[in-house]
Amino acid sequence: MNIDYRKTASLLTAKDNILIISHRRPDGDTIGCAAALCLGLRNLGKAAYILPNPDTNSLFLPYLEGKLARGDFVPDYVVAVDIAGKELYTQNSISYIDRLDLCIDHHASNEGLGKDICLDITCASCGELLFDILKEMGPVTPEIALPLYVAVSTDTGCFVYNNTTARSHRVAAALMDLGIDYKWANKRHFRTKSYKRLKIESMITDQMERFDGGTVVIATVTLDMMRALSATEEDVEDISAFVGQIEGAQTAVTLREIQPLECKISVRTLGGVNANSVCALLGGGGHEGAGGCTVFDTVPAAKAAILAAIRTVKNR
Amino acid sequence: MNIDYRKTASLLTAKDNILIISHRRPDGDTIGCAAALCLGLRNLGKAAYILPNPDTNSLFLPYLEGKLARGDFVPDYVVAVDIAGKELYTQNSISYIDRLDLCIDHHASNEGLGKDICLDITCASCGELLFDILKEMGPVTPEIALPLYVAVSTDTGCFVYNNTTARSHRVAAALMDLGIDYKWANKRHFRTKSYKRLKIESMITDQMERFDGGTVVIATVTLDMMRALSATEEDVEDISAFVGQIEGAQTAVTLREIQPLECKISVRTLGGVNANSVCALLGGGGHEGAGGCTVFDTVPAAKAAILAAIRTVKNR
Repeated sequence: MNIDYRKTASLLTAKDNILIISHRRPDGDTIGCAAALCLGLRNLGKAAYILPNPDTNSLFLPYLEGKLARGDFVPDYVVAVDIAGKELYTQNSISYIDRLDLCIDHHASNEGLGKDICLDITCASCGELLFDILKEMGPVTPEIALPLYVAVSTDTGCFVYNNTTARSHRVAAALMDLGIDYKWANKRHFRTKSYKRLKIESMITDQMERFDGGTVVIATVTLDMMRALSATEEDVEDISAFVGQIEGAQTAVTLREIQPLECKISVRTLGGVNANSVCALLGGGGHEGAGGCTVFDTVPAAKAAILAAIRTVKNR
Repeated sequence: MNIDYRKTASLLTAKDNILIISHRRPDGDTIGCAAALCLGLRNLGKAAYILPNPDTNSLFLPYLEGKLARGDFVPDYVVAVDIAGKELYTQNSISYIDRLDLCIDHHASNEGLGKDICLDITCASCGELLFDILKEMGPVTPEIALPLYVAVSTDTGCFVYNNTTARSHRVAAALMDLGIDYKWANKRHFRTKSYKRLKIESMITDQMERFDGGTVVIATVTLDMMRALSATEEDVEDISAFVGQIEGAQTAVTLREIQPLECKISVRTLGGVNANSVCALLGGGGHEGAGGCTVFDTVPAAKAAILAAIRTVKNR
């Protein structure tokens, strides 16, 4: 059943022994929401725990301290935060899908899993919706406000992504009024880069190729590059945003060699060229501004193929 | 005389033939404020123009379109926006200091130039203060709101710098409510980097040296590097922020070779080491978290000198 934030708050207030689940490859929104909800429930005197998430980035660990469920915790109520659908459940949370009591989410793609669903797709982050729910449940303390701020700020790239709304800013202002250390959070999440990440960005810049007067940029991350830096998936996370920022690049391509003869291609475009049309020519898809496809060939061949596809769509 | 935003609004409403002055090496705050104030005055039927600023970055030119004063414009009233003191006047505006009618500013270092001064040092940006003034003067249109948003967002690094406050967010929300194209502005000012800038960052990363377990990082920008990329001052603007973001670096040093045997050093620290103490050892100064000094020696000698100074302060 679809329920609003008030009904959600009253439901949560009536329950106890609550397990909170975050999504696969957790980001600041799902972790921040899990932490804030856990604290909000505990402030009402309830037993609340977060299911350990095996992929958690070390950046988010502080928010989970003292909140992780041990194996012997038997929940009476199970809540998913920021989880749109089945494939976003971690291995250790899949078994909870069939007994999910409540899902709090903001994704338009939400699949409707759970007895009750509190969904607001106008929110840039799940944290914005959860803020309204927690306010209904009781006073939002600074301890609750910090992970909520992390949720809202990380999902909007610190208020710079296109999903940012006036509401995102207003929620941030309300949370900052509570006296949270947002300076610490901003430094940690937006003004810090690992040395390895910088080395990867440096390598990408050095081998980046520009075509058609700089309007098309192709950046490649090869297996050799990854090996040379002992880089992991975490180190190249969201690397296509790095490539997409180059001035004058209307079509920014990031080509990742996944294994020999398998290249994963991500295409970002700014008006003019439809990324979905480009990727469709190589068996992929996407939206107008962003698309992806996989080319089972060498890096040079994949590069030639995507460049040809871009030019084909351009000249249509 | 110090006046508040209401008095400032009523003063401006009573004047005509107004010239607006922005500061040397103009940023988004001074240009955004100049543009917004100019539009606000014109909406009241007044003649208002902005004095051309010789250093204006091309990024900010669109906001000035149709607003620049020609040589034959004779103002009756002169307003400075975001200008803290004498040394921030451009060559072509110095002659206006003695006849400055009004200064609208947010810097604690404001020197009190002008017949009337509207100063609010609790604002992260001059734009926040001007927003209150313009609201008093009449409806804030989307045309006025866009440069105001640019002012507020650029001075806070898109709400990530330590000066950001809840008020900054609330002003942004109010401006976004007016229907401005903040997506365009965010892309333009925060999600775009020139290829040359990326090349410089890449070079800096490649030759960066790390000491004392990575807690001290020294990055060097030599004359050779600048020449190799035909880089200008604009290309290396705020480069110490780039160096300062490296994970684990508690002391981040940026060393710029200004000319042979002259190295300008910028030091940023995160707790532990006092940047002012470090730079004082080499004849410079600053604050706890940021300092600067100049070493008249070769690049290797300057590097050795600053490293020794850091270690001296660390071991005190």
